[in-house]
Amino acid sequence: MNVSVITIGDEILYGQTVDTNSAWIGEQCSLLGLNVIKVVSIGDDEAEIKHTLQELLKVCEIVFITGGLGPTNDDLTKKTLASFFESGWKTDEQVLKDIEERFKNRRASMLQSNIDQANIPDNAKAVRNLYGTAPGMWFELNGKVVISMPGVPHEMKQMMQNSIFPQIKKKYKLPLILHRYILTAGVGESIIAEKLIDFEKTLPAHIRLAYLPGIAKVKLRLTARGNDFDSMDKELQQLTKNLDKLLHKHIYGYNEDTLEGSVLKLFKEKKLKLAVAESCTGGQVAGTLVSVAGSSAYFEGGIIAYNNEVKKNLLDVKSDTLEKYGAVSEETVIEMVKGVCKKFNADIGLAVSGIAGPKGGTPEKPVGTVWIAFGKTDNIQTKKLSLPGNRKLNILGTTLISLNELRKYVSTQIG
Amino acid sequence: MNVSVITIGDEILYGQTVDTNSAWIGEQCSLLGLNVIKVVSIGDDEAEIKHTLQELLKVCEIVFITGGLGPTNDDLTKKTLASFFESGWKTDEQVLKDIEERFKNRRASMLQSNIDQANIPDNAKAVRNLYGTAPGMWFELNGKVVISMPGVPHEMKQMMQNSIFPQIKKKYKLPLILHRYILTAGVGESIIAEKLIDFEKTLPAHIRLAYLPGIAKVKLRLTARGNDFDSMDKELQQLTKNLDKLLHKHIYGYNEDTLEGSVLKLFKEKKLKLAVAESCTGGQVAGTLVSVAGSSAYFEGGIIAYNNEVKKNLLDVKSDTLEKYGAVSEETVIEMVKGVCKKFNADIGLAVSGIAGPKGGTPEKPVGTVWIAFGKTDNIQTKKLSLPGNRKLNILGTTLISLNELRKYVSTQIG
Repeated sequence: MNVSVITIGDEILYGQTVDTNSAWIGEQCSLLGLNVIKVVSIGDDEAEIKHTLQELLKVCEIVFITGGLGPTNDDLTKKTLASFFESGWKTDEQVLKDIEERFKNRRASMLQSNIDQANIPDNAKAVRNLYGTAPGMWFELNGKVVISMPGVPHEMKQMMQNSIFPQIKKKYKLPLILHRYILTAGVGESIIAEKLIDFEKTLPAHIRLAYLPGIAKVKLRLTARGNDFDSMDKELQQLTKNLDKLLHKHIYGYNEDTLEGSVLKLFKEKKLKLAVAESCTGGQVAGTLVSVAGSSAYFEGGIIAYNNEVKKNLLDVKSDTLEKYGAVSEETVIEMVKGVCKKFNADIGLAVSGIAGPKGGTPEKPVGTVWIAFGKTDNIQTKKLSLPGNRKLNILGTTLISLNELRKYVSTQIG
Repeated sequence: MNVSVITIGDEILYGQTVDTNSAWIGEQCSLLGLNVIKVVSIGDDEAEIKHTLQELLKVCEIVFITGGLGPTNDDLTKKTLASFFESGWKTDEQVLKDIEERFKNRRASMLQSNIDQANIPDNAKAVRNLYGTAPGMWFELNGKVVISMPGVPHEMKQMMQNSIFPQIKKKYKLPLILHRYILTAGVGESIIAEKLIDFEKTLPAHIRLAYLPGIAKVKLRLTARGNDFDSMDKELQQLTKNLDKLLHKHIYGYNEDTLEGSVLKLFKEKKLKLAVAESCTGGQVAGTLVSVAGSSAYFEGGIIAYNNEVKKNLLDVKSDTLEKYGAVSEETVIEMVKGVCKKFNADIGLAVSGIAGPKGGTPEKPVGTVWIAFGKTDNIQTKKLSLPGNRKLNILGTTLISLNELRKYVSTQIG
């Protein structure tokens, strides 16, 4: 079933706002089995809104609209839709109650423009907005559906997930589609593809495999289409098991998991405490670890040693080591792990030292050279990276690869 | 002059790729005085590409197209444009040379599909691609212009900046437009607007002020339209001076400046060394500081003290202080600044302790409560924050506000 998206707002055309709504809607629709054939961004312009809507209704069953529902005069969507659908006006009591409630909770007084947000075209059904004051609107005309939502992403997403998608699933007989994401890190798309040549041949026609590469990570997506939930779910479970065997240590999680979340889970399971010593990443490894709620259960902290004096004074790296091998060396990161474990009384240490660039490279150690060490004081492992990116990408790549190496170490080396 | 953008690619409709190209093109066009009236995203579909192009050429002088130029079979843009413009084919010698050069430098062997990329429709002018193998194409028909570029953002941007925009400026008499960005932090849009009520009244009709709010920051943009570069430039300089007076300490830079860049500049100018002690931000303050090249000139490092033992052992925070006032308190962050200055032998310290959420809040110290301290050991200042966001927003907000407070302190308190 074909659908399309209109995003309305001058700020999108002028590039002040990147339109992330249509990407999110596109992804969710394709997960549901709806086929997005076109996304159109236009300004707050009545004639243009009507013309675009008319054109899209010729080829689509559903048109999703975001934006232009604010209380100010430059927001024209509601007025334009009322005119397009030749509609009168009504006050939606539920929406009015929601708005009053919102202002009461914020102890703020309501303006007339806020009260007016409960007025909607009388041939629309209101869609409740739990995070803002502008309601969504669901129109139907000659069997086609037009749904208007606010442009604020979290307001739009809440409406879609709690109200609009469930209604669409009820109204239309959509194909049953199941997805499963298998999340890998530390290995390239082409290497994975090579490992999966035989696996892909075993896939039945109704199940597809997609590769979604990112920095230091590749997401795999298995998508099954059919009619019988139970048998499809069983098939995906079996295929996931097969992938587990083939990709094993590269897999850090499934579906909504994150790398930092799986590190947290492992450390909690094994009752271990972690401390980090960072040079070139300057705090970003630790910052990523604590971005997950609950990280204080295992993460003790760290030392950012951005120069050699700090490495010596606070991490007990020997002057000899720094002189002989340099700050970016296997020897130095091993001593950093030992030092940080001792200072923080941690079970496991992680240390990073490298040349993020753009300056500081030499012929022997060019920009992008990074040494990582991790482990218990009596079992420290190391890895050397040669990254190709600019400063920001090198720091990000080092951060993700460090977390992934740490994850692999703890899951395989610690009983 | 009206222009529009078509972005081509199934991955955009399915939401696997967020279309950032059209936002960038929109911004650049509006800076040049071109009026983007529509952005359309469609799949790799010949009929749809032709139909969309035909419709847009009715209302626009220039249509920019990105995507669909790869060497694989699912990329249809070049073939489709050749058919749309009823064109034959030619080999562009310059493009072929560029591609050969690229492969020689990478010591890789060229495939036939790479050689074929130098074949373009014979009524198009090639646009050189310095970062990839797919050339851009410039078509003209009945006085209208259609420009096709690759979808890879840095390839597209390079073509636009080095070749396409200069040609457009030469071909059309565009209005002269000058912009100046004034960058503020730590103060809300509405407070700035109130301070600028009288300023806005003094603006001549050909100069406009725009507010572009972000997290903890507000960008102001002055835009002048006219014919005489020198007088417009002078006017913008004078207005910027007036804004400097009105907003003074809230301004951290202009145009492309960053908050972390202005901290770097200040510390280098004043020959100061910095160390940080982070609790709830877990390394993100330091990570932001080192994201700028050259930060090793002033940044010594830091201690991430994610629990109380670390605060005591490594930062010399007194047990008494922690017991009496708690880890999230003015007293604790002051001791953290003193401790980190001593450990790192730094001139200036910055310390942060707070409750990022979602758990850990109490009635007296709800989630979002943060204490910041900064300064020399004998002149430490503090600030309490009450942030409204979720964990990620609270950490980001704390990070940006800390850097801004540090910047204000160093620029005003240190001679």
